[in-house]
Amino acid sequence: VVKFVTKVWKFLKQAWDLGVDDPRKVFHCLKVGVALMVVSLFYYMRPLYDGVGGSAIWAVMTVVVVFEYTVGGTLYKCLNRICATFLAGFLALGIHWVASHSGHRFEPYIMGISLFVLASATTFSRFIPVVKARFDYGCTIFILTYSLVSVSGYRVEHLLNVAHERLSTIIIGTCLCIITSMLVFPVWAGKELHLLIPRNMDKLAKSLDCCVADYFGHGDDESKKTLNGYKCVLNSKASEEAMANFARWEPAHGRFNFRHPWKNYLKIGASSRSCAYCIETLTSCLDSKNQVPESIKNHLSSACMNLSSSSSSAMRELAKIVSTMTRSAKIDMVVEEMKNAVQELQNDLQSLPDLLIQPHDVVVKEEESTTPNSPDKTTELVQSEVTVMPLMEVIPLVSFASLLIETASRIEES
Amino acid sequence: VVKFVTKVWKFLKQAWDLGVDDPRKVFHCLKVGVALMVVSLFYYMRPLYDGVGGSAIWAVMTVVVVFEYTVGGTLYKCLNRICATFLAGFLALGIHWVASHSGHRFEPYIMGISLFVLASATTFSRFIPVVKARFDYGCTIFILTYSLVSVSGYRVEHLLNVAHERLSTIIIGTCLCIITSMLVFPVWAGKELHLLIPRNMDKLAKSLDCCVADYFGHGDDESKKTLNGYKCVLNSKASEEAMANFARWEPAHGRFNFRHPWKNYLKIGASSRSCAYCIETLTSCLDSKNQVPESIKNHLSSACMNLSSSSSSAMRELAKIVSTMTRSAKIDMVVEEMKNAVQELQNDLQSLPDLLIQPHDVVVKEEESTTPNSPDKTTELVQSEVTVMPLMEVIPLVSFASLLIETASRIEES
Repeated sequence: VVKFVTKVWKFLKQAWDLGVDDPRKVFHCLKVGVALMVVSLFYYMRPLYDGVGGSAIWAVMTVVVVFEYTVGGTLYKCLNRICATFLAGFLALGIHWVASHSGHRFEPYIMGISLFVLASATTFSRFIPVVKARFDYGCTIFILTYSLVSVSGYRVEHLLNVAHERLSTIIIGTCLCIITSMLVFPVWAGKELHLLIPRNMDKLAKSLDCCVADYFGHGDDESKKTLNGYKCVLNSKASEEAMANFARWEPAHGRFNFRHPWKNYLKIGASSRSCAYCIETLTSCLDSKNQVPESIKNHLSSACMNLSSSSSSAMRELAKIVSTMTRSAKIDMVVEEMKNAVQELQNDLQSLPDLLIQPHDVVVKEEESTTPNSPDKTTELVQSEVTVMPLMEVIPLVSFASLLIETASRIEES
Repeated sequence: VVKFVTKVWKFLKQAWDLGVDDPRKVFHCLKVGVALMVVSLFYYMRPLYDGVGGSAIWAVMTVVVVFEYTVGGTLYKCLNRICATFLAGFLALGIHWVASHSGHRFEPYIMGISLFVLASATTFSRFIPVVKARFDYGCTIFILTYSLVSVSGYRVEHLLNVAHERLSTIIIGTCLCIITSMLVFPVWAGKELHLLIPRNMDKLAKSLDCCVADYFGHGDDESKKTLNGYKCVLNSKASEEAMANFARWEPAHGRFNFRHPWKNYLKIGASSRSCAYCIETLTSCLDSKNQVPESIKNHLSSACMNLSSSSSSAMRELAKIVSTMTRSAKIDMVVEEMKNAVQELQNDLQSLPDLLIQPHDVVVKEEESTTPNSPDKTTELVQSEVTVMPLMEVIPLVSFASLLIETASRIEES
């Protein structure tokens, strides 16, 4: 019993932390409650009830199924639901008219076969990536409405009335959802994406700093935590794509137009993911068994630290550009600044070979001074280990360059 | 008009390719069609219709909403739907009884407030990761059923009848779905996952081979294609987790028990993802601007090729173990074989420093022979570039070791 109570307590604490961490999630839950309350008024209040009739239940259902956390998600489901219901209802009525004019005997066959063909075809279309991304929910609703209308058509007399009532209640439900989600503490998928991308880039910059500092022994206990910040970027693809997908449905809000180039956010996300892969490989050098002697480390440390700090400052610069994205003239200045930072980074890299010769000489001297025994091998291995560091930072630079080009193009577009 | 026709043609061709590529998807669509046809028989045939009454519409709806591609997905939705409907219906009836005994005036208030509280709480619980993974659909259905029953309770007299009919039709629908998805060409999520993991590991092994062969100039045109095989492993996390989640709901099938350790598949997936990150960094060396002179490349090529081929053979060995997972005694042999392969790999690595000294000497000689000018720098940079190669293959080795341990533990468990 005690075990069960502690388990429940832990669960409740986790839930409480979640609420404290992001109060908007709590607001979302209250919004759902309010929307459901309002829609159930149609049942409780006689004049409203008499207006839409017994199918008011569809309005309640619409609210429960359609209400999503982000505005984009809600809009996506609402528009899909309305369009699919309209289309399927229209089609079902048409085929029902054809079937009813072909005699009572053929009617169930025609309706059954059309149901089979349409359901199979629509289910298949859900496997196509483009349809899956944008109209997945609409396909479900299309099959649902078509089968409901065509099946009811066999028993219910006033079919047109049923279709009309269902459509109007769905429109009531979706309108309520759209109004609630857009006006009461709205959570825009686009804004979330816009905040997520620079936050991820900042995390990468911090991780890069920490990783290099740790490698050269300048890291403290706190840096271990920030070092792992890059890990959430590694698997960010799915959530970024979902957000961009929802953002596409959102109307103009805040600083974002209707046709905001959300695809470019995905490109930047992909670039920062490839940076994260590099940092992943860099951090694995930290745990490597072949540790480098201090003398060689010290020789290279200043160059590496310099490189990493300029890399991460360029990354932060880029993050700032992405987040402060406006049409103002100030952006040109920042772009110029950023370009200078990248130029500086490249200059640093150009001067690296000079620096590399020195530790190399050290190794050569060490080889000459010591007798050829096993420690020699480790020194050799270690030297190559050290040279891994700056060279792997070439790769983030390449992605930086692509990031730069993309960001510039994005600024031009918006 | 021509543009539109070509677009439609392209779309149809894409759909056709999809169907040819994986005929099971076509079977899935036909299964959905058949299930819908069968369930709509309840409407067309008078004796069946008189049995369940007008709420047969819920059976149709259940089939449309619940039928998923994999057996696990269907079972997850079915069980969630039945449990949530039962729980919510029971709760709604209880609260409705309390409300109806507290007078006609308070009734709407009690029902409204309970609806608000329950809907908000359930929506909030969907944000908790554990609930999200296993009971997300159940939460939606819980809110839906509760609001439908509580709202109808205000108008409909025979509430118990409504609840009973709804539950029985849902059970009819879910049973039909479960039977169709499990007996007619079943697609098991667990089997899919079981096939996916070794396939991904094979892809990684091929990519590693191609990458190293390409680097040393042994690659042909075809290898470019297989080289990119690792890319689909990079972002495999979401799909693997979804499959493992569905697999958990599946009963014993084929070689898998009910409590098959699906979590270990996720661990192996994570390990192979970290291998993929390494290969990503390795391949970026291919496009690097600093190209290595042939003399140094040739010196290292045999060691690198050896290392990569033994790495990839160990990876293939592991993939074979994962896919041929049985309780037979043969597995011990394979494990022994695999351990030998890893041992061999480590021996190769131990002898690497010996090999590394040779190209290093070459560089030193070149430095001594040439005058100190700019080509020197590039040679130096290039030498460190070459040494990147073997050291980065240390990292896959580390993940190999963890993979090995995990696979061994998994074999013990199952």
